[in-house]
Formats: sequence, structure tokens, C-alpha cells
Amino acid sequence: MTALWQRQPVGIVGLGLMGGSLGLDLQARGATVRAFVHREEAAERARQRALAGEVSTDPAVLRDCGLVVLALPLDRLLAPDPGLLAALPPAAVVTDVGSVKAPVLAVWEPLLGGRFVAGHPMAGTAQAGVEAGLRGLFQGRPWVATPGDATDAEALAAVRGLAEAVGAHWLTCLAADHDRAVALISHLPVLVSAALLQTADRAGAALPQLVRALASSGFADTSRVGGGNPELGALMARSNREAVLGALAAYRQEIDALEARVEARDWDGLQTELAACARMRPEFL
Amino acid sequence: MTALWQRQPVGIVGLGLMGGSLGLDLQARGATVRAFVHREEAAERARQRALAGEVSTDPAVLRDCGLVVLALPLDRLLAPDPGLLAALPPAAVVTDVGSVKAPVLAVWEPLLGGRFVAGHPMAGTAQAGVEAGLRGLFQGRPWVATPGDATDAEALAAVRGLAEAVGAHWLTCLAADHDRAVALISHLPVLVSAALLQTADRAGAALPQLVRALASSGFADTSRVGGGNPELGALMARSNREAVLGALAAYRQEIDALEARVEARDWDGLQTELAACARMRPEFL
Repeated sequence: MTALWQRQPVGIVGLGLMGGSLGLDLQARGATVRAFVHREEAAERARQRALAGEVSTDPAVLRDCGLVVLALPLDRLLAPDPGLLAALPPAAVVTDVGSVKAPVLAVWEPLLGGRFVAGHPMAGTAQAGVEAGLRGLFQGRPWVATPGDATDAEALAAVRGLAEAVGAHWLTCLAADHDRAVALISHLPVLVSAALLQTADRAGAALPQLVRALASSGFADTSRVGGGNPELGALMARSNREAVLGALAAYRQEIDALEARVEARDWDGLQTELAACARMRPEFL
Repeated sequence: MTALWQRQPVGIVGLGLMGGSLGLDLQARGATVRAFVHREEAAERARQRALAGEVSTDPAVLRDCGLVVLALPLDRLLAPDPGLLAALPPAAVVTDVGSVKAPVLAVWEPLLGGRFVAGHPMAGTAQAGVEAGLRGLFQGRPWVATPGDATDAEALAAVRGLAEAVGAHWLTCLAADHDRAVALISHLPVLVSAALLQTADRAGAALPQLVRALASSGFADTSRVGGGNPELGALMARSNREAVLGALAAYRQEIDALEARVEARDWDGLQTELAACARMRPEFL
């Protein structure tokens, strides 16, 4: 049996990094892709880049789609445009790509019931916007779905088919577990890394040239995500506030424990902790 | 006038990453290089790799050297071997490559007076040992010297000539300033990053597979130095304890301030802080 994305057109709402990449990959696999974007300028550029077979600023472009992917920024996903809602085909399976899941389910499940599937492809680059989409973005990356109590099994299978068609590794979990996990491995690193930059800047204010001259690849790596997109960082903390606060509280315990070892000159204990980190890190790669 | 490293043989003590790389680069520039290493097995491999023109486990190999580079691990540098001390030529300029400077000056300046120059080439890879040395390691990297009150100007100039011969960018500062700066940009990142790994492991213990499956390139980068060499991490904290404690205290203030913004739902304030981080980070690269 063919998959839903093969039988009916796929709609994509938003053609940034996620939506554009999905459009390119799905078309390469033979899908018919129709996209709704907000601004005519983006629509024009998306047509030039052939991110979808049809690109429109009118949501009616979605009318024959069997599967619609909401590839919107999180803030717009959480406050959906009434024009978009009205244009979603009444029988279509609808999914999203947002980086937190409980708030998305809370908004969309009451609107669409079991045919809404909350999803999060864990793929990205530093780029955004209509120029960002690229082939193969999802290849080998996790695509997490967080079905709710009401989610239809068929709708879930339709989204799985789409994710696997673009080479992603499918997994499912509870929305709350997803949000706790991404707080630890995605949102916490942003804050940890930003605080490092602020410390080097402020505590290093007496020797500003020296700290900048001596910063090497270790500092560059540890500070990378803290120097990333500020809107996205603030939005993640906002959308996942409780899990982020939980992660920060847990993090502070670990920093305190390391500091206590330095304070107490417990060098063997410190080395034991660092050795555990060195053994553990490959599990996360 | 030719530089000291061109007029007389250069001695290197230890042929790990730093010593081996220096031996390769100096010989490529025409220097005569003689090396003293601890173990015959390492000496044999160093000869095969031609890290120096002469390699011996007898420190007498250093006898005609005008300039000796102590490329030893920090613990051995801070507790020098009496046999090595006795073999250092009485008129030679002696320098080191240790990653903290005040403790090194405190040990070596009383022993050698003005002809000891405390130095720190800020270059590295993840490798160590006799296989690690490579050409061009110092090219374009900072080489910091931290002269004390007693340091001879001629000795300082001799080490500068050596550093610039291998393409390093020479700078000088007070030992205490160097140690504070590296605490912020090199030692603090190790602890910040290690605490992140511990948090993901321990706070993520309820969902161990999920946190590991979802960790992406951001987590990989932020956790890299925390998963590095544990002996080196503990030794850095031990040798630079006060500056590391100062950096940790400053860091905790920054983490607390970010947490307070999340707690208070001050999303504009959080975004402003993250935007400052994004603007600031390129200054450190």
C-alpha cells in the first residue's frame, strides 16, 4: 500500500529551514507539494528555488492536501492564524515541527482532535528563512512524535511514513518527556553557554583584550549555542519554562558539587567526576 | 643578527604534543634540536619520527644548548627532577609551555633567576604523547610570556625569537592576569561543560535513552571540553585554584541572573541578554 504522502498532495505551511528542506526532499521522492507562505516576497523566492510545486500566499492552496505540515516558528504555531485554520482540509492529517510539544498539543488537539500529530524533527543548521532549506536535512536524524490520548493511529502512521521517506529515524514518547529531555539537551546548553560568554565578558572586564586573545577552540565550542539566535533562545525558554527551570536547578547542583571539590582541594574526586564525564559523553553523540 | 635558536642548539625536555611539534618546526627552519625524554621507548619512537636531531634519556644531551624548552606536563614541571636541574647548562635561557604561570614562576625563578622565561603557547589538539607532535601547530596562535620582576630582557627576546620563528603571535602580560584569563576562557569551560554532561546524565536518569537519542550538535559542542582529559582538567583546577574559584563564583552569578529572568517570565530581558551574547561572541573567535 502506498503512503498518504504518495496518494495525495502534501501541504507545507512555512518554507523556512524545516519546511523548505521537507519540500525539496518530498518532491525528489515524487510527492506533490503545495505550500502556503505569509509574504509574497518569500513565495516568489520559494518558487525560484522550487521548494514546492505550487507556492501561494492564499491558504486555499492547501485544499486538496491529505497531509499538512505546519513548519511555522513556535510563536506562530502556538497562536494560529484563523485564516489558516479555516483553510485546513477537514479530513487532512496535520502535523508540526515545533521544538516543544506539550504546549503545541494543548493548542492543536482541541482544534483538530485525533488527526493532529505533534512532531519534532531534530535537525537543524544555523540558517533560517527561505534560503535555508536544503536536501537531506533529515537524513539519519531523529523525528520524534508525541501522540496524545486522542491521536489516531492512522494519522500517526501517515506522519511516520513522511518522516521515514526523508530518511529520519522515527521515535515516539510522551510530550512531557520530550519537553524535559529537550530542556536538558537543547535548552539548558543555550543558557549554560550564554552564562559562560557573560562571565568571560564581565569577570574579564579588567583584562578584556587578554581574555579575547587567549580564547581558543574550547571556548569557541562551549560558547557556540549561547551566541546563537536570541529570539529562538528566549522563545524556547518561554515555551518550555517549567522544564527549563527544572534543568537549571539540576545544573546548579552539579556546578555546586564541582565547586565544592575545588574548594576542598578534592583533586582525586574532581578527576573521578571528569573521568565519568569523559566515559559518558560518547553515549550522547 | 641571528637569533639564539639559530646560533646554538635548542634543547627540548619532553616530546609530547608541544615538544614534538616544536622540534619538527624548529628543525624545518634549520635549528639544531636536542631532546631529553624520560622513557627509552618514547625516545626510540621520537627518533623514528625525527622530532629532534638527537634524542636521549640522559639529560646530558642538553649540555651545549643555548635555549632549553621545558615541554613537560604541569605536574612534572612544578616538581622538577633533580637530574634535569643539574644538567641544565648554566648560561642557557630556559622557558616552559605550562598552562598556568604564577606557580611555574614561583618554582623556577628562584632556581634560575632572570634567565627563566615563563611561557604559554596557546595551541593544542586532543592528542598527547610522542605520536601527537605535528608541523604548524603554533602558526597564528598566541604565545604568551609572563615575565617576572627578575626576568632578563635578553632572555625574553630569545624566547620571543623562538616563538615567532614557529609562526606564533607573541604577547606578554603579568602571570596573575594570565592565570585569571585562562581560568575564565579555558578552565571554567571545562567545569561548565562537565556539569552539563552530569546534569543530562543524572537529571535525565528517568529518560536515559531519550536524552541520548535527542542530543544534537549543540549538545555535542557544549559538552566537548567537559568530556576531555580528566587528569588535565583536575590538574588545571589544582594549579590555578584561586582563579578557578573566582571564575566559578562569577559564573554562578550569571546563571542565577538568567534563571531569575526565566523564573520572572522576563522574556524581553532574557532576549536582550542573549542578543548581547550573540554580538559579543565573535570578539572571542
